[in-house]
Amino acid sequence: MTTQDISSRRPLPDGFLDDLRALLGDRVQTGDAIRLEHGRSESHFAPMPPDVVAFVESTAEVVAIVRLCGTAYVPIIPFGAGTSVEGNTLAVQGGLSLDLSRMTKIVAVNNEDFDCTVEAGVRREQLNEHLRDQGLFFPIDPGANATIGGMASTRASGTNAVRYGTMREAVLGLTVVAADGRVIRTAQRARKSSAGYDLTRLFVGSEGTLGIVTEVTLRLHAIPEAISAATCSFETIGGAVDTVVQSIQLGIPLARVELLDDMQIRAVNRWSNMDLPELTTLFFEFHGSERYVAEQVETVGELAAANGGGEFQWANLPEDRSRLWKARHEAYYAAVNIRPGAMGWATDVCVPISRLAQCITETKADLAASSVPATILGHVGDGNFHVVFAIDRESAEELQEVEGINARLVRRALAMDGTCTGEHGIGLGKQEWLVEELGEAVDLMRSVKRALDPGNLFNPGKIFALGAIEPDMPAGGAT
Amino acid sequence: MTTQDISSRRPLPDGFLDDLRALLGDRVQTGDAIRLEHGRSESHFAPMPPDVVAFVESTAEVVAIVRLCGTAYVPIIPFGAGTSVEGNTLAVQGGLSLDLSRMTKIVAVNNEDFDCTVEAGVRREQLNEHLRDQGLFFPIDPGANATIGGMASTRASGTNAVRYGTMREAVLGLTVVAADGRVIRTAQRARKSSAGYDLTRLFVGSEGTLGIVTEVTLRLHAIPEAISAATCSFETIGGAVDTVVQSIQLGIPLARVELLDDMQIRAVNRWSNMDLPELTTLFFEFHGSERYVAEQVETVGELAAANGGGEFQWANLPEDRSRLWKARHEAYYAAVNIRPGAMGWATDVCVPISRLAQCITETKADLAASSVPATILGHVGDGNFHVVFAIDRESAEELQEVEGINARLVRRALAMDGTCTGEHGIGLGKQEWLVEELGEAVDLMRSVKRALDPGNLFNPGKIFALGAIEPDMPAGGAT
Repeated sequence: MTTQDISSRRPLPDGFLDDLRALLGDRVQTGDAIRLEHGRSESHFAPMPPDVVAFVESTAEVVAIVRLCGTAYVPIIPFGAGTSVEGNTLAVQGGLSLDLSRMTKIVAVNNEDFDCTVEAGVRREQLNEHLRDQGLFFPIDPGANATIGGMASTRASGTNAVRYGTMREAVLGLTVVAADGRVIRTAQRARKSSAGYDLTRLFVGSEGTLGIVTEVTLRLHAIPEAISAATCSFETIGGAVDTVVQSIQLGIPLARVELLDDMQIRAVNRWSNMDLPELTTLFFEFHGSERYVAEQVETVGELAAANGGGEFQWANLPEDRSRLWKARHEAYYAAVNIRPGAMGWATDVCVPISRLAQCITETKADLAASSVPATILGHVGDGNFHVVFAIDRESAEELQEVEGINARLVRRALAMDGTCTGEHGIGLGKQEWLVEELGEAVDLMRSVKRALDPGNLFNPGKIFALGAIEPDMPAGGAT
Repeated sequence: MTTQDISSRRPLPDGFLDDLRALLGDRVQTGDAIRLEHGRSESHFAPMPPDVVAFVESTAEVVAIVRLCGTAYVPIIPFGAGTSVEGNTLAVQGGLSLDLSRMTKIVAVNNEDFDCTVEAGVRREQLNEHLRDQGLFFPIDPGANATIGGMASTRASGTNAVRYGTMREAVLGLTVVAADGRVIRTAQRARKSSAGYDLTRLFVGSEGTLGIVTEVTLRLHAIPEAISAATCSFETIGGAVDTVVQSIQLGIPLARVELLDDMQIRAVNRWSNMDLPELTTLFFEFHGSERYVAEQVETVGELAAANGGGEFQWANLPEDRSRLWKARHEAYYAAVNIRPGAMGWATDVCVPISRLAQCITETKADLAASSVPATILGHVGDGNFHVVFAIDRESAEELQEVEGINARLVRRALAMDGTCTGEHGIGLGKQEWLVEELGEAVDLMRSVKRALDPGNLFNPGKIFALGAIEPDMPAGGAT
């Protein structure tokens, strides 16, 4: 497993836990099991538990904790559902895991304005259940039933992003507790604004390193009159990708278009008891009026046929559609469980779509030369794909082998003008690649971090290493 | 006219112009006419000319100028087409106007990826002419033939934003010269990324205060198979706005939907020689396949009729459509010229769409009580609208009256959870409103500014006032 230098860990100061309990009572927990649960990852990182877990129920409580931790030099790691995969919530330097999962109030739904405001701990499935009766939905769907706060913090996207965008587009405004304990609202509820710097977008994707997000205002969409879903198998990866590129070129607003390689289909068939042909496959979803969906289907069907695709297999009943997307959502677990007892390692890159077929093909060749089982699946309309490895958790050789494949994958994507992560974030796992991708731009990020969190209080050690601590730090203290 | 404290202006240091001429030769200009041209505004602000204008032709030249100005404590105000309306390019403290309008290279068009990279001085009409043969277009259209760099810097949007988003969504990445002269690339060309802080969105809308944008990578779109445009007159503002809200609720992807009030229609009829009924009017544009456009038109036509709208007046021939949108683009000039010799004052706000009809109706009542001619026009699908006043430039009373109307308009929008500017930016004109809108969040913006531009070198005095200068400022010197 990856090891991590925790030499800068320091014990909690005397009296800190008493002060914390005075604020939150028995919502302060220090048991081994709860700390481990907040200090482990869904992926391959070694556990790094926090010293204490605090379950908050309001923005005011977050303010009190930020003030307390700032004075006591205790790092704060915000925690939602714990479904991130780059070690984003691990307590590298110990400290306090700030669990927001009990902040589940849906504060307001403005159905005429297609927006809502929710507390950070609301999960996307809860939100969509709440919205359904009003004819609205929240489209961002990373697979996991993540919290909205966590999704904002990693700039999550997922299957619907090709049509509806990512959290970058979905978030209209945030309530954030800043390092000095002030509560900031980043934007009003207007659909667009030119009022000063885009603080909303600065916090979206900052992985909890700049402030604690406690409320999120989101764009919503009308549930379409008609939804149609289908799968289609292809002889080649190029044929599948070309079908997608040509569809976009014709202006078809694909709502979802997911690529699963033959290995991934085999894993899904086994895990979800499906019987799809074990070939490169696209999962499609079309949204619109009845007539317009029919038109989209007709056009895309013709393109697929011209690119070596088979017949569309339809899943138009709501229960069939749910089964199909449930299988897609569980693809990660399916991929890991292809090898009994294996540990998962998920990585993702995103490239310009003109390079996608080549990037996947070269990656598959690299995987074929490895003994570690691995699958490929991707949000192909965005040029974004994942590789999921099923590693023997006892084997240092396999870990090293996968690190090599991952390094080659990221370098391949960067050379194609792509990014080292399309939607997982940097966390602990992609820090060296961030620097390779953006070079000195990372120094500007560090300057922003130092300006907004001068004491390095928030999620220290994530996204990038900071330089030496300034001697006259106004607050906090972790490096 | 608005006055401005220029007490902090200081003369250019000895030898500065010689150093500058050694870099750029006769592209350094100090004549009164050229300085005035770079120190005036399209709106009501008093001219504030820079001390010198420098016409740059490459990123390398920008680097050299940033280094020179940083050492010499000379402010840099980036300048594109000069079409902003909140005094965004005025030289409040003198200094150097950095004119990027000669940087007009289209660096690359990647038609399979629907993106392009252009130098900051490329204008949107030049870009669209270049793209047309490739079946692509760049949708952001603020009316004026602005530069892409300027549009990025004010987070411009305009008539197509309801369908295609604003510069926030359109910009994929930027090349920026930072305060220390380093050249930063904010992102690779991938469609989405979770790689660290969103520097792209931080620079978009920062009005030249954080760095000099020299290249912009943009998302493009396929020219639709069918385009259809029409106007429709309404008895009431509520009927027009309800038609738009209901269309969006049904998922109709309106490409453009512009509201012009009766006064604005009168101005347009006179200026553009049209004969539209002098009523609240929507200008529509529909994009899609032939069949889908027909379906959209049918649905929206039914909604308009149900909301007191008249017959659609079609403009389907390309030349008729051009004439219609040309009239819309010239609406500002039409509004100002309704009163011979008048000076224009344009303001804009943006509110949640559920409040738009009320906001416009209350604003019209306020305008009706004023002696200053004014029109209303707006990007109604976004909740964004403008008021254009035609002021007697000699009358201090009229100026004061308009300031009062503007203040009430902005407060009305803020009380409706709207923003003080949807697309014009803060510049000089909206600084007090930014603070009223976002409160202490503005302090975070100031922290970011100090972190990225510690010497306040870039466009000083815009967006917000900075506090006292730190005594050990590392570079620059303007307050």
